[in-house]
Amino acid sequence: MRLMMFRSQGDDAAPHRFGIVDGDAVADLSGRLSGMAELIRRAGAGEAIDIRGADRYPLAAVDFLPPTHGVGRVFCVGLNYAKHIAETGRSPGARPSLFLRLPTAQVGHRQAIIRPAISDQFDFEGELAVVIGRGGHRIDPADAMDHVAGYCCFADNSVRDWQRHAAQVTPGKNFDASGAVGPWIVTRDAAPAPARMVLTTRLNGRVMQQDSPGTLVFPIDRLIAYISSFTRLQPGDLIATGSPEGVGMARDPQVWMQPGDRLEVEITGIGVLSNTVVQEPGGGGLPAGDEADT
Amino acid sequence: MRLMMFRSQGDDAAPHRFGIVDGDAVADLSGRLSGMAELIRRAGAGEAIDIRGADRYPLAAVDFLPPTHGVGRVFCVGLNYAKHIAETGRSPGARPSLFLRLPTAQVGHRQAIIRPAISDQFDFEGELAVVIGRGGHRIDPADAMDHVAGYCCFADNSVRDWQRHAAQVTPGKNFDASGAVGPWIVTRDAAPAPARMVLTTRLNGRVMQQDSPGTLVFPIDRLIAYISSFTRLQPGDLIATGSPEGVGMARDPQVWMQPGDRLEVEITGIGVLSNTVVQEPGGGGLPAGDEADT
Repeated sequence: MRLMMFRSQGDDAAPHRFGIVDGDAVADLSGRLSGMAELIRRAGAGEAIDIRGADRYPLAAVDFLPPTHGVGRVFCVGLNYAKHIAETGRSPGARPSLFLRLPTAQVGHRQAIIRPAISDQFDFEGELAVVIGRGGHRIDPADAMDHVAGYCCFADNSVRDWQRHAAQVTPGKNFDASGAVGPWIVTRDAAPAPARMVLTTRLNGRVMQQDSPGTLVFPIDRLIAYISSFTRLQPGDLIATGSPEGVGMARDPQVWMQPGDRLEVEITGIGVLSNTVVQEPGGGGLPAGDEADT
Repeated sequence: MRLMMFRSQGDDAAPHRFGIVDGDAVADLSGRLSGMAELIRRAGAGEAIDIRGADRYPLAAVDFLPPTHGVGRVFCVGLNYAKHIAETGRSPGARPSLFLRLPTAQVGHRQAIIRPAISDQFDFEGELAVVIGRGGHRIDPADAMDHVAGYCCFADNSVRDWQRHAAQVTPGKNFDASGAVGPWIVTRDAAPAPARMVLTTRLNGRVMQQDSPGTLVFPIDRLIAYISSFTRLQPGDLIATGSPEGVGMARDPQVWMQPGDRLEVEITGIGVLSNTVVQEPGGGGLPAGDEADT
């Protein structure tokens, strides 16, 4: 099953709906279940969900929302592919490097990602994201995959100069609408095993990153065990598992995303998350000289 | 005015209510306003809020919730008092060091803070927190204080070994129920200027930290300008401004919080946030040898 959140096209104030993809449409389950968290939990557990008689919305005529919008938290893993660690000049850590992205930092499939007016260093990072279906605390790695509802594509885009303002990467990872997630959650029973997935990031059609989540330094079961050690995981929590080598920052010459660029994150058996870069108008706010040197 | 969130005592499933403190009681405004965000926005703007006829709940008979629970995001500033920077052996940065705490990491006034079963290094960090009343993007430092609804006390407690697992402090700052915030928001018109506040952290009655937010390396107006540069601030967003010197980790001998300890964070004109440390039962989850060396 493919689970998604959406709203009527072009209407920011339209109610958020959720449902299951059925051919070229989505079957709206908003009135039938208590919320997207319930759909994720039940579909992730392999329950059959009855979509007979549900209203259909053509996929071509909806706005995609991040599939865990307003449901769970967004945990991100840095430095989790060996070649990407090497290209950043760092060494592998003994434990996962974790940061958080705010809900405001992601948009859905086909929505605009915003290149900030106050930086030229807008970089792409394609990733596999895991969505939790069954909550738990101190989950044993041996049981961890049973807690996975499914997978989606994630663009953990970074504003590199702001990411390096201090030791903590928070600002550069949390510009409003800088990242993306979607298009939907493919339930685990309908998805390939992560080791058989290929993750590909394309910028304007050119392959920029390509690797398999099978090569993760900290694989998914370890990540779930680690994160659930400090916080009880809940249905709808999302873990972005890290980005492979090939980011724009590490290229020679460097590649930064520009207005009009088309970013695609494709994962075998999951789909293609596609977003276009739009320039944020204006700038302002900080006095001249304060951030001008970044 | 003092704004708070609460629920019926001892009932985790009771509905969340919000209101204004009136003597020894809180006047419940839950049915009158759309939510705590509206109360924060209006009270923070100096609007008179009519509490006549509102139900009163005695403060002694409610459970305090974090005053921005379910409303806004929690931004935390590290290394923002000169003597604390010195005691950690670091140097002041050119820009604020920012991390995020999840809503699950804080409890309200008088609630138990949980000492994790998987660490002995549970440390206290008293802080002044600022709550945003008027949203904004790229806020000019000269206007920033007009965006402040009010202030509360914050316990940015840390699990030190987990904070140092990797460069990002996320895990050690996000153990469930490790921190606290409250008891309420004192609106800016009713609070002293931050430079006139004294922040005091007491453990079992002993003063462990004491300094004035007037000495912040990055003062409140700069923090608001900086954070609003990457994300539009919204009513109910909270900024914990950093902790003074005196944390348990930097003492000789080190002081770690123990079950039964009473932690108090007091700020002039704001109040006392008081919490008792409770030991988390059990441990488990990660296999032997994986985290045993921390």
